[in-house]
Amino acid sequence: MPSYKRIINKLIHKNITISTAESCTGGLLASTITKIKDSSKIFIGGYVTYSNKLKIRDLNVGKTTIEKYGAVSKETGMEMANGLYLKNKTNICISTTGVAGPGGGTKGKPVGLVYIGILINGKKKVFKKKFSGSRINIQKNCVSFIFDYLDKSI
Amino acid sequence: MPSYKRIINKLIHKNITISTAESCTGGLLASTITKIKDSSKIFIGGYVTYSNKLKIRDLNVGKTTIEKYGAVSKETGMEMANGLYLKNKTNICISTTGVAGPGGGTKGKPVGLVYIGILINGKKKVFKKKFSGSRINIQKNCVSFIFDYLDKSI
Repeated sequence: MPSYKRIINKLIHKNITISTAESCTGGLLASTITKIKDSSKIFIGGYVTYSNKLKIRDLNVGKTTIEKYGAVSKETGMEMANGLYLKNKTNICISTTGVAGPGGGTKGKPVGLVYIGILINGKKKVFKKKFSGSRINIQKNCVSFIFDYLDKSI
Repeated sequence: MPSYKRIINKLIHKNITISTAESCTGGLLASTITKIKDSSKIFIGGYVTYSNKLKIRDLNVGKTTIEKYGAVSKETGMEMANGLYLKNKTNICISTTGVAGPGGGTKGKPVGLVYIGILINGKKKVFKKKFSGSRINIQKNCVSFIFDYLDKSI
């Protein structure tokens, strides 16, 4: 597990702002950031868009995108991060959408499948990951992956 | 500490929807809800409005309210919950705004001071609480208080 405190302090030191748009992690990413003191200097806020309605309304994800590709898809993950960026204009924008389980999995989209959208200063990436373990472990592993990636990228 | 799983299951069983607008708890409330399986049946999503800008833009808190009373105030806590209700129309709407510390405290608004706005089916309340301990403990105690209150109220 990366040192969350060290990475947040790196963001603070470099004055790199961040905001979040979470589906499957359900607030755990924001909470992991805001547990660290002084995180308010770089974290302006985030969305927990659990329902499709909120993904569409708050993050401007296309209704047709969700209908065509599903809420758990590369396309939705990217649109969530893009929508977040258009709202907040933070240096870093992160989205998560996946199947945390234990229910809801299918053959094509099994429990543990997560798409993570990351925008850093305009550079866009969507990662497709398959995490294992319990619901909470899947959420935690997703947050851990994000921090690892940020640590390497900033 | 209340049994979060039992209380979320009570909400699911009674089909009582919920959404959240968090400042000082920074996503911990949403995360505590979404750690429980099937919470997506009743939790539609939430906001983490850490900056004043997001409180105003996403929750329709009055700029003048924040200027007059401060972000950590009964008035802001109530407006956050009201704004959340107008957006999501969930049976339960909850807001948190406070000083999680360790910095940011003043004589009038010390570390640990938290206002919690709760709307349940149109009934509005704002609680003023003073939690003690570390930043994380203050956040956790706030979430614990909210679940205790919900348990008694639903």
